[in-house]
Amino acid sequence: MSGTIEPLRFEEGTLLVLDQRLLPREERWLRCEDPAAVADCIRTLAVRGAPAIGIAAAYGLALAGADREGAAELLRSTRPTAVNLAWAIEQVLRAPDALARARELHREQDEADRRLASLGAARFEAGDRALTHCNAGALATGGYGTAGGVLRAAWEQGRLAEVWVDETRPLLQGARLTTYELERAGIPYRLITDSSAGTLMARGMVDRIVVGADRIAANGDVANKVGTYPLAVLAARHDVPFYVAAPLSTVDPETPSGDAIPIEERDGGEVADGVPALNLAFDVTPAELVTAIVTEAGVLESPYEEAIAAVAGR
Amino acid sequence: MSGTIEPLRFEEGTLLVLDQRLLPREERWLRCEDPAAVADCIRTLAVRGAPAIGIAAAYGLALAGADREGAAELLRSTRPTAVNLAWAIEQVLRAPDALARARELHREQDEADRRLASLGAARFEAGDRALTHCNAGALATGGYGTAGGVLRAAWEQGRLAEVWVDETRPLLQGARLTTYELERAGIPYRLITDSSAGTLMARGMVDRIVVGADRIAANGDVANKVGTYPLAVLAARHDVPFYVAAPLSTVDPETPSGDAIPIEERDGGEVADGVPALNLAFDVTPAELVTAIVTEAGVLESPYEEAIAAVAGR
Repeated sequence: MSGTIEPLRFEEGTLLVLDQRLLPREERWLRCEDPAAVADCIRTLAVRGAPAIGIAAAYGLALAGADREGAAELLRSTRPTAVNLAWAIEQVLRAPDALARARELHREQDEADRRLASLGAARFEAGDRALTHCNAGALATGGYGTAGGVLRAAWEQGRLAEVWVDETRPLLQGARLTTYELERAGIPYRLITDSSAGTLMARGMVDRIVVGADRIAANGDVANKVGTYPLAVLAARHDVPFYVAAPLSTVDPETPSGDAIPIEERDGGEVADGVPALNLAFDVTPAELVTAIVTEAGVLESPYEEAIAAVAGR
Repeated sequence: MSGTIEPLRFEEGTLLVLDQRLLPREERWLRCEDPAAVADCIRTLAVRGAPAIGIAAAYGLALAGADREGAAELLRSTRPTAVNLAWAIEQVLRAPDALARARELHREQDEADRRLASLGAARFEAGDRALTHCNAGALATGGYGTAGGVLRAAWEQGRLAEVWVDETRPLLQGARLTTYELERAGIPYRLITDSSAGTLMARGMVDRIVVGADRIAANGDVANKVGTYPLAVLAARHDVPFYVAAPLSTVDPETPSGDAIPIEERDGGEVADGVPALNLAFDVTPAELVTAIVTEAGVLESPYEEAIAAVAGR
């Protein structure tokens, strides 16, 4: 994982979590020695990003004592939307050696990211200006990054000119984390407010959009950070290809459609102090607005129901 | 103007400007005794909102010494998008008594606001949940408010249940100013991030959208705070009526369409410090997405070219 920012490290019986709430100002590592400490890190967003919280939970479960079921339940309850969390916990529960399986999931994530990044980058053309939302880079996955990985691979292949980074309110994962990653990777970027993206598309300044996902339903509907859905609607209006990059662990064949995806509502204080606020953390983009879903098993296109059934559960 | 927050007061040869950059934390008044001081207040957003900056400029011109043309030029150059600025300056330049005309423009704004607010409120139905963007209340006009006036009138008539307030990045005029006004008026509201509006519409939680405008072209295209265009696109997708509330002084028959409206680009530091950013302050909503334009001369509907020609220049 050379060149990659690692959000998680497991060393000497301890999970080290890079506190993403403090980035880019400060790189501080939190030490977790039991499942409760890991659950706290996930709930409070010290670690975030669907694949990364799955891996963190996997390590958290590997730190459990006798009450593995209780630890699994605690970790599973931290955040409702990302399906990777439940998936990774299930993988570890089934394994004879919990820590070995957690380490393997971590390694597999990096491999999946690199494969899907390469497949996604192949869709780019020289000079492309891409727009991304939130953070779906190495910090969000523990590997090479999903949407962020696609951008890195496209850049390495000389197909990417510049990235438009949505700041991503309320917690500014785009402004704080994606710019930090792009800066380190030497990829040119400019930050914009979330509500500027439509104007850039209307002016022909965006050639493609790439985002990550927290859960993909069996019909191809995609839950991702709030603000993804309006981007997809605008992309359709302006004929801008809209890609979702995610590992198969984000695909949930048991969720029939976006309506069935639980959308996390977080504290209104994240938006503003002292005024009533509704803080929906995610939204659902209907499959009809998604040009392609880029996974490590291939680039899926409509009809998604069939394409997903063919690769899910691999 | 009872019950109304006044952003501008002219007393004893001095224009007092309520510093909106400090709201809602602090109510501080800035004293302007010459056109340059007023120009500074407009440029730095101590006073903002298309009608309010027009009135501020009118008073500023009334404070000019011998070089009235120079003062007009300085005031006109402060901000490019709102046409009310040039319009109000022209009105004062033509008048025999500059101060009397400035005071009259101020009074006329309040009258226009109240008329259009009443016309707009008539479109509401009991129980409506309305969404608004940025701030187009009394603080933005110096009168009763345009979009904010429509909301107040609808509330007074018992037709409004709740207001969704877009926080409006980067300067948070919704989170800071619109919530402040609604709080004082006792109107129930909840703040949301700009990118949540689409999800609320998809869930059927928004019955209508009302926004102000900085310039309306002869064909009905509307320039307003960035983030208005994506709202209009989402509103069309979800069949949510989308109203623009603005006085006739915002209508510019000499601008044929939105393409010809200059869109102000402000300093990237307003979005974030230390990273490259593109900060477009406004966007253009094509007339086809606007359900109606609510003016003091009536509610205009498509075809806008004709409807606008019939009332412009009154």
